[in-house]
Amino acid sequence: MYDGQYCSVARSLEVIGERWSLLILREALLSGTSRFSDFRHNLGIATNVLASRLESLVEAGLMERDDTGNYRLLEPGQDFLHVLMAFGEWGDKWRAPDGPPGVYRHSDCGEPVALVATCAKHGELADDEIHIEPGPGVPPEYIASRRP
Amino acid sequence: MYDGQYCSVARSLEVIGERWSLLILREALLSGTSRFSDFRHNLGIATNVLASRLESLVEAGLMERDDTGNYRLLEPGQDFLHVLMAFGEWGDKWRAPDGPPGVYRHSDCGEPVALVATCAKHGELADDEIHIEPGPGVPPEYIASRRP
Repeated sequence: MYDGQYCSVARSLEVIGERWSLLILREALLSGTSRFSDFRHNLGIATNVLASRLESLVEAGLMERDDTGNYRLLEPGQDFLHVLMAFGEWGDKWRAPDGPPGVYRHSDCGEPVALVATCAKHGELADDEIHIEPGPGVPPEYIASRRP
Repeated sequence: MYDGQYCSVARSLEVIGERWSLLILREALLSGTSRFSDFRHNLGIATNVLASRLESLVEAGLMERDDTGNYRLLEPGQDFLHVLMAFGEWGDKWRAPDGPPGVYRHSDCGEPVALVATCAKHGELADDEIHIEPGPGVPPEYIASRRP
């Protein structure tokens, strides 16, 4: 569907497929959920949808089904932590009238952890100090085809 | 659908709805796209789907339709930058055989920009040094209902 898009956001979304997959990753990554019945209980998700989404996550190489029938994250799945944190920070700011439902903390010291956009030379940046430029993975004809 | 979830990821996903919305935000945020026809051209998205997703983004307060009929990001929409960056970093690492299609740079100095999970006291953290704890926005009975 997104084949014509030279964009890492599009390619990531293709793996995720839809919203339940991210919530399944959240369960596995942040709560250590691994049993089918626990995913179902904690997410309130229909059995057939859960089975289908877990299968997709296994096919995409984000999770594996172990000998006991439980689901474990593989490295690409574990690597979704920053995506979950970024979504969480947005929701905490714009959709959390009673305060944040969860707080990320440094396990050693207990201090809060935030995602910071960081310049290799200058450290923390505000959003308006950042732009995106074409990288090696995008062909010139794709850039030329874009509007305006 | 996610009403029973005390989770900022779930609440953010509820706003986004599905994948096209994030790609529309990507167009607006990273490329400055504002015209309906440019969104359609750049995303290769069906007219009716685009109209419906833009309407949802306006209803959710992420964008507005200005006097000229173009679409502009409001602050909650602009705040999706870190979500896009986090997805981009995942895709760059796991789905970019020809190198990253795009590179985030500090506009002042041109150096690359990365999202860094940062402890208020100790600076940059690895993913395995971070955990999530319940915050003020989650009722005790919800925590008690979770498994295992």
